[in-house]
This record gives sequence, C-alpha cells and structure tokens, in this order.
Amino acid sequence: MTPEDERHPDDVQQHLREVQDLLARHKLVEGLVHRQDMPRHDLVENLVHKQHVAELQHKLDELHPADIAYILEALPLDERLFVWDLVKAERDGEILLEVSDAVRESLIETMDTHELKAAAETLDADELADLAPDLPPEVIQDVFQSLDSEEREQLRAAMSYPEDSVGALMDFDMVTVREDVTLEVVLRYLRRFEELPDHTDKLFVVDRDDHLKGILTLEKLLISDPELEVSEVMRREPVISFQPDDDASEAAQAFERYDLVSAPVIDADKRVIGRLTVADAVDFIREESEHEILAHAGLREEEDIFASVWDSVKNRWAWLAVNLVTAFIASRVIGAFENSIEKLVALAALMPIVAGIGGNSGNQTITMIVRAIAMGQVEQSARNRLLKKEVGVAVFNGIVWGGLLGVLAWWLYGSVSLGLVMTAAMTLNLLLAATAGVLIPMIRIRLGADPAIGSSVLITALTDSGGFFIFLGLATLFLL
Amino acid sequence: MTPEDERHPDDVQQHLREVQDLLARHKLVEGLVHRQDMPRHDLVENLVHKQHVAELQHKLDELHPADIAYILEALPLDERLFVWDLVKAERDGEILLEVSDAVRESLIETMDTHELKAAAETLDADELADLAPDLPPEVIQDVFQSLDSEEREQLRAAMSYPEDSVGALMDFDMVTVREDVTLEVVLRYLRRFEELPDHTDKLFVVDRDDHLKGILTLEKLLISDPELEVSEVMRREPVISFQPDDDASEAAQAFERYDLVSAPVIDADKRVIGRLTVADAVDFIREESEHEILAHAGLREEEDIFASVWDSVKNRWAWLAVNLVTAFIASRVIGAFENSIEKLVALAALMPIVAGIGGNSGNQTITMIVRAIAMGQVEQSARNRLLKKEVGVAVFNGIVWGGLLGVLAWWLYGSVSLGLVMTAAMTLNLLLAATAGVLIPMIRIRLGADPAIGSSVLITALTDSGGFFIFLGLATLFLL
Repeated sequence: MTPEDERHPDDVQQHLREVQDLLARHKLVEGLVHRQDMPRHDLVENLVHKQHVAELQHKLDELHPADIAYILEALPLDERLFVWDLVKAERDGEILLEVSDAVRESLIETMDTHELKAAAETLDADELADLAPDLPPEVIQDVFQSLDSEEREQLRAAMSYPEDSVGALMDFDMVTVREDVTLEVVLRYLRRFEELPDHTDKLFVVDRDDHLKGILTLEKLLISDPELEVSEVMRREPVISFQPDDDASEAAQAFERYDLVSAPVIDADKRVIGRLTVADAVDFIREESEHEILAHAGLREEEDIFASVWDSVKNRWAWLAVNLVTAFIASRVIGAFENSIEKLVALAALMPIVAGIGGNSGNQTITMIVRAIAMGQVEQSARNRLLKKEVGVAVFNGIVWGGLLGVLAWWLYGSVSLGLVMTAAMTLNLLLAATAGVLIPMIRIRLGADPAIGSSVLITALTDSGGFFIFLGLATLFLL
Repeated sequence: MTPEDERHPDDVQQHLREVQDLLARHKLVEGLVHRQDMPRHDLVENLVHKQHVAELQHKLDELHPADIAYILEALPLDERLFVWDLVKAERDGEILLEVSDAVRESLIETMDTHELKAAAETLDADELADLAPDLPPEVIQDVFQSLDSEEREQLRAAMSYPEDSVGALMDFDMVTVREDVTLEVVLRYLRRFEELPDHTDKLFVVDRDDHLKGILTLEKLLISDPELEVSEVMRREPVISFQPDDDASEAAQAFERYDLVSAPVIDADKRVIGRLTVADAVDFIREESEHEILAHAGLREEEDIFASVWDSVKNRWAWLAVNLVTAFIASRVIGAFENSIEKLVALAALMPIVAGIGGNSGNQTITMIVRAIAMGQVEQSARNRLLKKEVGVAVFNGIVWGGLLGVLAWWLYGSVSLGLVMTAAMTLNLLLAATAGVLIPMIRIRLGADPAIGSSVLITALTDSGGFFIFLGLATLFLL
C-alpha cells in the first residue's frame, strides 16, 4: 500500500461520488459529440472528453484496489465496464480478488485470454487458487505453465482443499527462523527483507525439516535482549495452529476468540505448510454471515444489484419453487375443509392469523437453536431442557395472545365457542412450532445435515399447513 | 496469554465436554451424599467430591478466558453458577467481558458488591466502559474513585461515546514515538517495555503535543537500517485514522477493506487519543451480523439458550405483538370479502398462496436492497434502475409461477376464469412486493431511519393484506 492508499474511512463514499461525477460529465460530452454533426466542434469536444477520461484514470490510479472494487460494484454495468477499461492492467488481478463473485463474473466476461493471463500472473499461488474457479481452463493451464515448481506445488495444494477448509484460506507467505540462533541474528536476517508478508505478527520457529517448534512474536523479538537465543524467548508448542483440513468456520471462530493476527498451518507431521491471517478470517466471517442472511431470504448468493432480470430470476427461483409447493400443500389442507368454511365463513378470515403467528414464533425458536448449534453450544443432552423451555414459552404465548385473539373473534362474530376454538388452535399451533423448532435442527444434525439450510422454509411450511389443519379441524369438530 | 492458553481450535469443544463430564461426576457424588444418611460413608464421599471439584478447578485455571466464557454460555444456569464460583476471582473481570450480554447478567446477579468491585478493578478503562452498563451504580462509583486521574479521564471519555461509535470501541494502549529519533533509539525504547499492547503492528509518530505525524510499522522498524531516523521511514499523514464520533460500522468495514491490524483514533485537532484494533473490528462485525440475523426472526437480542421462560417471553413478545396486529388487519381484509368467499369457497383455499408467495418474493427484494444500502452502494439515483429490474423479475415470476398456479386452480376447480384471476392476482401482488421492496428502504433512508429494522415485517404485512385484497377483489369483480 502506498501512502495515497490510506484515507479516512468515509472517503470511499467520497471516491464513489467523484467517479460518478466524472462519469456523468464524460457521458454528457460524449452525448454532445454524437448528437452534433458540426465538425468544427469535434476537436474541442474530443479534447474535453479526453481530459475527463484522463482525470478519471488519474483518480483510479490513486485508489486502493479494495476501493476500486467497491466502486465497480456500485456502478451499473455500462459504467462499470468503462471504468474497468481505465484501470491499469497490472492491477486487474488484485481488483478481481476484491470484487464480489457476481461482479467478478461480469468483469471476466469482457476480458480476453491474453488480459486474463496477464492479470493472473500478478497474483500469488493462494490468490490464484481463489480466482481459478472463475477463469477459463486454458488461462489456468497457461498460468500454471508459467509458475516455478514451488508455486505450482502451492497452487495445486491450495486448489485441492474444499472451499470451507483452512487449506482454501491459507497463504504461503511465512517467515521461519531456527531456534538455535540469537535474536540479533534474527534481526539482521529480517533487515535483508525488502518487506515482510502482510500481518506478520510472529515468526514460525522450525527445525531443519520445517517441523513447527514454536513461535517467536515480533513483540518478544522487540522487547527482549538481542543476545538471547530464539529458544529462550519463543513460545513452544503447543501453540495455536491449524491443519489444512480444519473447518474454516471453526478456525475463524478461534481467531476471534483468541484475538489472533496470524497462525501457522501444519500438516499431519507438524511441518509448517502455510499461514492463516486475521484478514482471511474476517473475510470468511463476513461471507458466512452474508450467506446466512441471504439464505434466510432465499437468495442463492450475493446478487449484483445491477444484474440483469434473468440473472436475478435464476438467483431467486429455487426458493420460490419450494415456497410454491409448500403453499400449495397448505392450500390443499384448506381445500379439505371447504365444507366447514362454506358453513362458517368467519373461519376463512381467522385461519391466516393462526398460521402466521405460528410461523413467526417457530422461526424465533429455530433461529435461536440453529445459532446455538452453530456455536457448538448445544448438545443432544440439552434437548429435553430446551424443549421444556420452548413449550413453556408456547403455552404462555398461546394463552395470552391466543386469548386476546379469542376475545377479538368473539367480539367480531359474537360466538364464544368460536373464540375458544381460536385460543385453543393458537396454543396448539404454537406448541407445534416450539416442538418443531427444537427438534428439526437437532434431528438434522443427527442425520449429518446443516441445520441452517432452509430451516425457515421447513418450519413455516409446517406451521402453515399445521395451523390450518388444527384451526379448521377444531372448528369442524366443535362448531359445526 | 500463557502457553497453556493456546490450543488447537477443536479443543474448546473438548474443554466443554471435559467440564460437563466432571460436573456429571460431581453431581452424582453430591446426590449420594444427600441421599444416604450413613455417616460412615460421609467422609469418603466428601473426599471424592472434593477431588472432583479440585480437578474441575484445575481444569478451569488452565483455560483461556474466552474458553471459560464459551463453557459458561453452554451450561444450564445451576451448573453455570457452580463453575463460575470455581473460577479464580482475579479472572472474573476478563471473563465477564467475553460472555454474551444475557449470560453476563445471569453471572452478575449472583455476585455481591465486593466481588464486582474486585472484578472491575482488574480491567482497563476501555474494558470497564464496556462492562459499566451492567454494573450497579455504587460499584461503578467505587471503582471510579480507585482510578488514577488519567484512567478516570479515559473511562469518562469511553463512556461518553454512543454505543456504535469508534469512541466506544477504542482502547488507550498505544505506543508513540517522535520522528526525530533514530530507529536504534526506538528499538532501545521498546526493549524497556515488559510487553507491548496486543495487536501492536505500528507505532504512532507524534509531536510534542501528541499530534499525529504518521505511523511507523513494526515491519519498517525491523527491515530498515537502525541508523535511519523515524522521519525517513515512517508513513506520513494522511494515514488511515478514525475519529471517536465515526460510525463503528464504517470503521469495521475499513479494517476489513484495507486489512488493518490497528489504527490511531484522533480528535478534531489531530491529537492521538486512542487506538482501534482488528479484534474490536471483528467483534463488532460478528455482533452486527448476529444482531441482523436475530432481528430478522424478531428476537430482540441474543438469547441465553438456558434463559427462563419469562426472559424468553420478554425477548420475543414485541415482534409477536406487531405480527398480531398485521395478521389482524389481513384478517379484516378477508372479512370484507366474506360474501364472495361464501359464494365461491375455493377462494379461501387459494388466497394464502397469493399472499405467501408475494411475501417471500418481497423479502428477497428488500433483503437485497437493504444490504446494498448498508454497504453504501445504492444512491437514490439508482432507484429507477433498480425498480425497473425488480418489476421485470416480478412480471416474469408472475407469468411463469402465477401461470402454473392458474393452471392448477383451473384443474382443481374446473374454472378457466378462476385460473386467470389467480394468475393476474399473483402477478399484481408480485409487482406490489417488488415496488414496495425497493421503495420502502429508500423512503426510510430519506426519512433518516435505519432501513433494516423490521423491513421483513413491513413487507410481509403489505403483501399479506395486499395479496388478499387483490385476489379477493379481482374474484369479486370478475367471477361473481
């Protein structure tokens, strides 16, 4: 990062506005050039045009890659591609790493093989591995050929780990030292570097065969007497380290819990093979929580807000299809009670209340349980305790809110028994919601499934069909 | 952190299991002691009991405060308080900082003024400020008296900033140097420290009056010739810095975007008054996303999963109450069409489909728009473009899915016109959902409100009532 890259955080919005401004002016001029046919003006307008483009280019050259990525994401497709063309080719790689998947796709589509190869060649092996799934195979092949054997090995390794593993997040930029040298020697060794890898807060102490012996924090290196040996100030094993097959989510939680900046990644033989940094952990945490929020609303992935209608439809259709099926089932449950509704039309007006409140209450329960499970804090042994608590909440809410609605139904339709059926149906549907909210995630865990995926769909489907069935069933039994 | 604190990440689960194990054994013995009245056995059982307690205590002494916090959160109240009593008093403060708000309350309730004071006195000013809202006023008063004047000033400052500001997150542990000294002098200065503040990756270069002149990264300090002066290797202003009134969310995004480890916090005169670290940023990101996920399900705050029924009811009632009101309104919309339903009971079975799918589709749109707004990537100027896209998606889905449902309705009830009404109502409700999904957050932003809060409730209320109205209205017009 050059000094120009560092700014006050508010400034990224400022950057965006400036770029939009320049684009607007640029467009205006371009519009004039096209509309007017007077050749005399051409030259002047072309000059003005060129001047704006140069200004924009200068502005972009000054920006941090992450800021350019932010601006690209915020621009509609035509403006985005115009700006992308102005970005210096040697910065393409790092910017592609920063943009969201959807925007990355839109940028890569416009680049030819040659440009993509040039962009890829500016990246490290671990960065290349992140980008690889979006690149055409022939580009990857070419880039692979251009790497030296160590980088090839790293790229092969990085690409071999599943997406949510530590191996997929790690980089290969670590500084290692031996334990039998003095700190003075380490200090002299570091002075031979032109720069240290980002987020170097500790050096990894290894033996001749790269086995992890411990860590030497820069803090210890700086505050200790340089005459001391590394072995005297290092923190010995066991230190916090990860294996490439470890779950990335757990590693990110460990970074958060222990306030880590970097940590070694070791293989089964305790050989240091890579490094995980807090930047990777933060990115992972952000992506994970975004994924959860989007999944909740049935969005498959982060959407480029300026995506085409067709791309948006594709991103959203799966959830709508599921929803269609569950809504249809609920509708058939109602259909089975059409005779009852014909006799007492008030049922049609009241039934969505029972279903809706059951759905919301069930979502509260399942959200809480799924979160607690994700944090690893719920064992199967706690099931009965949780069930008891949720059932208690359901009975309370059923009597209080169900009672209130029962009174309203009585008041609206002048029937005490209709009010009582309403209260009973509310309570029963809340009980169904509470039980399912606790049991569905627990059962899915036992079956080895991710309890978060579609939990909201499942519980809503159940409380909708269940709510209709309970309410209309009770009404048929007691009112008709 | 002592060496014992650092473990493989999986181990926190392991720790939890071990503690639960010890607790189970402990309970068994305690049960025996209480149940049996034979005095002869008392001594032996007491010994076994004591041995288990000692083992548990030893285990706890070895654990990182964050791990103890994790275990406390995962234990039911009685076991939680038993473990809490075994934790060494001098560690109470740091553990209270790590546990969730709900669990912190449950722990503080059991501590007397004296214990709370002792715990609070082990903390730094910025940590105290975090804990203060949960402490009784007399404890804060006492602790305040025991601070020296600098710490008092820091505590006063930290407590004066609103919760979501940089000021509330910052700490006061910074190392500053002057620019006119050599790196050799800086290195000697650092060797006088017993330890450096956590997350020190740079020193802040200041003048005599603490005005920020630039930063000296540990990297530059380590790789540069010690004969050089600080001014020759430091990065000069402007560097990334924050002001205490800055939005914490934007600061956290800046940490993520620029991969920062620490950054200075300066006042309006550019005087360094504190420091923000990546650990604070990570905690903030995690809390923010948790808050969003919980708010989505209508949970006011993170819930202690072993909370009492009453605490759970309190945490959830607000959303249920709102939901009750919106469901009641939707029910009255249906009530207005009771005549139509009486004549054509199929309407009762089909209407929840129209409402439900509109709700889900609206939630997809609003979730995407709210997220894009939160990232600062949607300007009011993009409104028409987004509206056009969402309307396009709605028309597409209305024709495809609505058409499918129309065919199903035709097939079920043998009425082409009922099918056509179904398709038309679906399309119109999806259009309502798309328009509201774009406009509601944009209007709320213009009114200065947070577009995220209750966005899901609002859109669902609108698409429920609207869906019923559109479907039953169209049916009344064209079918009866």
